[in-house]
Amino acid sequence: MNKSLLSAISVIVIFICNSFGTAVAAEQQAVKQHPSLVITAQDVVDMRSEIARDGRFKKEFQDKKSQLDSKLALPKQVPVPRDSGGGFTHEVHKNNAQSMYDAAIIYQLTREEKYANYVRDMLFLYADMYPGLPLHPQRKTDSVISAGKLFWQNLNESVWLVYVIQAYDAILPALTTSERKTIETGILRPVALFLSEGSPHTFNTIHNHATWATCAVGMTGYVLNEPEWVEQALYGSDKSGKGGFLRQLDELFSPQGYYNEGPYYQRYALLPFVTFAKAIAVNEPQRNIFSYRDGIVLKAVNTTIQLSYNNLFLPINDAIKDKGLNTIELVNGVAIAYSVTKDAGLLSIAKQQDKVILTGDGLRIAQALDQHLEQPYPFTSMVFQDGAKGDEGGLVVMREKDQALVFKATAQGMGHGHFDKLNWLFYDKGAEIVSDYGSARFLNVEAKFGGRYLPENDTYASQTIAHNTLVVDETSHFNGDTSVGNENHPDLLYFANKDGLKISAARVDNAYSDVEFVRTMAQIHHKQLAHPVVLDVLTVHSNNVHQLDLPLHYKGHLMDTNVALDTATQRLAPLGKKNGYEHLWLKATAKAAMPVSQITWLHDNGRFYSLSTISRADMKILFTQIGANDPLFNLRTENAFILRIPSAKQAAFVSVLEPHGEYNPVSELTFTANSQVKNITHQQVGDIDQVSLEFINGPKLLLLLNNAKAFDEKKLNKVKIGGKQYSFRGRFHLIDLTDN
Amino acid sequence: MNKSLLSAISVIVIFICNSFGTAVAAEQQAVKQHPSLVITAQDVVDMRSEIARDGRFKKEFQDKKSQLDSKLALPKQVPVPRDSGGGFTHEVHKNNAQSMYDAAIIYQLTREEKYANYVRDMLFLYADMYPGLPLHPQRKTDSVISAGKLFWQNLNESVWLVYVIQAYDAILPALTTSERKTIETGILRPVALFLSEGSPHTFNTIHNHATWATCAVGMTGYVLNEPEWVEQALYGSDKSGKGGFLRQLDELFSPQGYYNEGPYYQRYALLPFVTFAKAIAVNEPQRNIFSYRDGIVLKAVNTTIQLSYNNLFLPINDAIKDKGLNTIELVNGVAIAYSVTKDAGLLSIAKQQDKVILTGDGLRIAQALDQHLEQPYPFTSMVFQDGAKGDEGGLVVMREKDQALVFKATAQGMGHGHFDKLNWLFYDKGAEIVSDYGSARFLNVEAKFGGRYLPENDTYASQTIAHNTLVVDETSHFNGDTSVGNENHPDLLYFANKDGLKISAARVDNAYSDVEFVRTMAQIHHKQLAHPVVLDVLTVHSNNVHQLDLPLHYKGHLMDTNVALDTATQRLAPLGKKNGYEHLWLKATAKAAMPVSQITWLHDNGRFYSLSTISRADMKILFTQIGANDPLFNLRTENAFILRIPSAKQAAFVSVLEPHGEYNPVSELTFTANSQVKNITHQQVGDIDQVSLEFINGPKLLLLLNNAKAFDEKKLNKVKIGGKQYSFRGRFHLIDLTDN
Repeated sequence: MNKSLLSAISVIVIFICNSFGTAVAAEQQAVKQHPSLVITAQDVVDMRSEIARDGRFKKEFQDKKSQLDSKLALPKQVPVPRDSGGGFTHEVHKNNAQSMYDAAIIYQLTREEKYANYVRDMLFLYADMYPGLPLHPQRKTDSVISAGKLFWQNLNESVWLVYVIQAYDAILPALTTSERKTIETGILRPVALFLSEGSPHTFNTIHNHATWATCAVGMTGYVLNEPEWVEQALYGSDKSGKGGFLRQLDELFSPQGYYNEGPYYQRYALLPFVTFAKAIAVNEPQRNIFSYRDGIVLKAVNTTIQLSYNNLFLPINDAIKDKGLNTIELVNGVAIAYSVTKDAGLLSIAKQQDKVILTGDGLRIAQALDQHLEQPYPFTSMVFQDGAKGDEGGLVVMREKDQALVFKATAQGMGHGHFDKLNWLFYDKGAEIVSDYGSARFLNVEAKFGGRYLPENDTYASQTIAHNTLVVDETSHFNGDTSVGNENHPDLLYFANKDGLKISAARVDNAYSDVEFVRTMAQIHHKQLAHPVVLDVLTVHSNNVHQLDLPLHYKGHLMDTNVALDTATQRLAPLGKKNGYEHLWLKATAKAAMPVSQITWLHDNGRFYSLSTISRADMKILFTQIGANDPLFNLRTENAFILRIPSAKQAAFVSVLEPHGEYNPVSELTFTANSQVKNITHQQVGDIDQVSLEFINGPKLLLLLNNAKAFDEKKLNKVKIGGKQYSFRGRFHLIDLTDN
Repeated sequence: MNKSLLSAISVIVIFICNSFGTAVAAEQQAVKQHPSLVITAQDVVDMRSEIARDGRFKKEFQDKKSQLDSKLALPKQVPVPRDSGGGFTHEVHKNNAQSMYDAAIIYQLTREEKYANYVRDMLFLYADMYPGLPLHPQRKTDSVISAGKLFWQNLNESVWLVYVIQAYDAILPALTTSERKTIETGILRPVALFLSEGSPHTFNTIHNHATWATCAVGMTGYVLNEPEWVEQALYGSDKSGKGGFLRQLDELFSPQGYYNEGPYYQRYALLPFVTFAKAIAVNEPQRNIFSYRDGIVLKAVNTTIQLSYNNLFLPINDAIKDKGLNTIELVNGVAIAYSVTKDAGLLSIAKQQDKVILTGDGLRIAQALDQHLEQPYPFTSMVFQDGAKGDEGGLVVMREKDQALVFKATAQGMGHGHFDKLNWLFYDKGAEIVSDYGSARFLNVEAKFGGRYLPENDTYASQTIAHNTLVVDETSHFNGDTSVGNENHPDLLYFANKDGLKISAARVDNAYSDVEFVRTMAQIHHKQLAHPVVLDVLTVHSNNVHQLDLPLHYKGHLMDTNVALDTATQRLAPLGKKNGYEHLWLKATAKAAMPVSQITWLHDNGRFYSLSTISRADMKILFTQIGANDPLFNLRTENAFILRIPSAKQAAFVSVLEPHGEYNPVSELTFTANSQVKNITHQQVGDIDQVSLEFINGPKLLLLLNNAKAFDEKKLNKVKIGGKQYSFRGRFHLIDLTDN
């Protein structure tokens, strides 16, 4: 039997199934198949055949059905809206949307009327209540977030409709004309119109809240046969293209698919993008939505995956550090993307997610995993440019062996952005080694500030000192003003990856009024090194003297220093008074050791890490611990040390971070517990930074950098070092001086 | 071909193999087969056949051979002894013993002469050097640990010989008579005699160092055909039985196989016990060594396993917390025990260990695992009595679901014991929830006090305040004097396990001169509770007023308290001046909340934990963090809170520890973040403690305890509570008052 014949028969079969007992309705509906949003009628045929076979998909179907059956045994609740986020009525309405969605899926898979009836009866209750509802009593009147009716903010109302319209789409063939009318006029149309015409500010803005709104309204337009609503969802209320889904795709992602707020919110924002895109592809394939803007939707999915280490998202900006690839948004994203691309690399992500979703896309993932088709996902070293045009800095990720070096030269990232220009993170052997605090928040824990962002998110976590980058005069970048931050961004000078060297540099001229700083970060792999090392060259220029602090937040236990610690053994006091400094206990101070200061710590992963920094006579090292001015124990106890130059116009912080050795108390094996860095030197002559690195029984390297503002790619740079002349074109030149 | 015929042929085959190229030697040796210690000639036949087949054993053989081959390519080093533990000559000699052992095994498996020659040539070098050696230059003259010659302490010399004699036993058939003579007279006999006749203090003591010595000397006796040495190893130098291996078996373990120093050192001590026992069983099966003292060797292996949670040893006393079931000592112990018992539960431990050893016992494990014969290991709730007669207290382990409650009513545990009478630990959902610091040590990390026990092991980790038990007047038990501690022990009153209740009580009258305390710990499982809860009733009696502190070291992040925290936000100071208090920063204080004080924390395992304690008007709660007076950052930053009664003659600390709810930031799910304890009451009337527990939407329980010193098992206890009369016989009575 050939494929198209089979497909034709399937359509007939589904038509017969759908029409069973609802002949009149089915007849009228025959012009348009249902479901037809994320799940198609053909998907239903495939899914029904799949649940007859043992495998991942069938197991998930059985689990979901049994969970749902217990839910269906409880009385339906559709309470008058009263509570804000997390409160009773909020949670009930959220849950109802999910239950209706699940019941509609199970209805399609089983054809048992009770599931369709559950959705129908629930929607009757909503249709009865909704038209009379005023704006939500808990709405925020002074907020940019617009009010809803069922919920305190219309964002939640959009999310609700995204689930409910899919549920309705799936049970529609089971309804009589009059039932449809009751539901459509009582609840679906009023909500859709409230979200579009009734909330133009949200609907037309370029923001992820608007993505949910346009997704909800557009999908409702498809189901209720209102092409005008679809047009509005795509192009904005006035169909001018100044707002709407396509404009959001143009502006909310960079050309690489990077989302301005960072991977934690990218993950959250992803769901309405992939959901609506899928619905558009199903209903209007001619729009080629997955090819729009060079495939931006798929790039967004892939970028979300790339911006992770050991399954967890890189926790830049406001981020809860437990979130990772197994979040439900990315499970959906991977399923939809795999359906489009059949990229076997996505399967290994899906396998790690270990969650099956009951859609046609979920089915294709489950079948492919049952057949062991997965291939390793190609995590790569690259720059993820920031800004709609890709010209507002970027996030650089360098990977080598089991390391990842993250260099954050992005723009501010709106309200959830941190004041951390040119911050860096480092991962090795499965673990965070040089860390970012992420956000200060215990999600949904009522006792912790209602589960919202804690006050310490502003006073500590987003401040510059909480990151691994330059703090001038104990003041955060942009003086801690988000709106100023949003108007500025670093200049990413370059990123390169060749011959065992990954390197990038960026410049910031606007974080402080009279201070410029340039940072070069490199990941250097050499055959004589057991592990790649990180080189960090941060140079600072000002016309005035300033105090310069460069913190490094390390994970692990301090093992050794070559500096003499003056430890506060009898009394701890905060390091400063404001901008996050008030939250740091000063545990010890040390004068830098000449010529190189070394600090070694041991991570729980059993490896040692040393930072070796070129010292200056006036440099101090401050060892700190989070916890001061924290009356309710809201902050985690974490450690850092700060390289401090008390007073300088010009300075260079030049350091090597080096993983080394092993601590294995199980086998009682300890080796190479000490740094293998022998010496580091740096001097700047003209535009050229000359950095030399020498390792004990290891390589000797010379790195030449040109980070000049006025830079000519074609010009030949020439330097004379130790009587020898070197010349190179471009931003950098690595010379291996190792004796062989 | 029947089995015995096959076996006979095998013996002939091995005889032929052994004799190949060394005919004369083999002829003389025919009276005694080699090897014949832990590995037998029959084992060798089986192992050679096994490496022809793909499986765990073959893989390990290939790995080991390839590691060894790279080692054999290096020049042999047998340096004149110079360095103490961890130093160069120390490590070289340690390594040489291991390499000779490995080469001898590989020789038996491959019959390649180069492996036998490696061992022979290495032994020649030792035979050349050893007879002229003085005592080791780094020996400790004031130590109870006797000096060695190759090593600074003769413990290491014993360990060295244990490996080397097994290596010699395996290559012996490949040697000529004159080669044997050179080796035996030059090194094997001198070392054995040095360890027995030359070091009588070590050899005859009842201590694990002596176990290594007797193991080494006894096995050498078997190989060199010196039955007198075997007798001395078994019964002491004078063969009186006052010393020697059998006496060690009598005295170093309790009847349950508990080793006085705790599981960390039990694991270490285990290896010479199982090794020598195996050699005895092979050479003199008539001794029935594995049945000796009701099977004490096998009990010791099983007890070591039982005293673990989630594969890690319970870290009481001096213990490095990373050590667990996968340590090589226990890999050997499990293999030898499995060979004797064929207990399939041991296989699941071996499977988790994931290490194969190249012995006959290792082979039997590998084959059984290849055949998937493993069964779950039966972790049980029981008391492990302490003391040779089992009358010196004990360690109580209570398990339920994924919980383990550990109640430490053991004796002091010699030099590695901590001052922590009636301490407790609690594990749940795979993690340590109420913790013990273990030892303060970074094993073999030179920068950390040479890798030895840190000074803070004495000043902090072994002090009472570092544990979860009563501290009177900021002074440790036995005033921190180990010798006094060793002369005393708690009285373990009882342990019982019935009807969902596991309960134990113990009394201490000797830790303080005028203070007695009794502690009852129970793990209560009830169908209306989501998780079992822990009840802790600690009563204190004195004729004088004292300050009473009861610390609880919790793992996780403080979430909520019903007490008002007065937090030190601007300045931290140490809690006290000595006995460990000087290492604690006082972070906050609170007055107890009437009637019950509640403190809730969140563990990384995603579960909440609350301690609810009956308050007194004068009770304070102090929140502390480790780190004061720690100039070199030697201590880990960990948290505790201390229930403090400032001045009292009599007091009761009555608390419930309750796991509850879930924090799942991945699915954004948080539930039951608050304690479900509604009320707790306690009163003592006569000998009877009456404790009532009431939970929100949960059970109401009444527990009656009789912890009296003068106790009559047969007497009927009678109490009247709320007008109702209760009577019971025995130590305790649990009454379920839940409304049903």
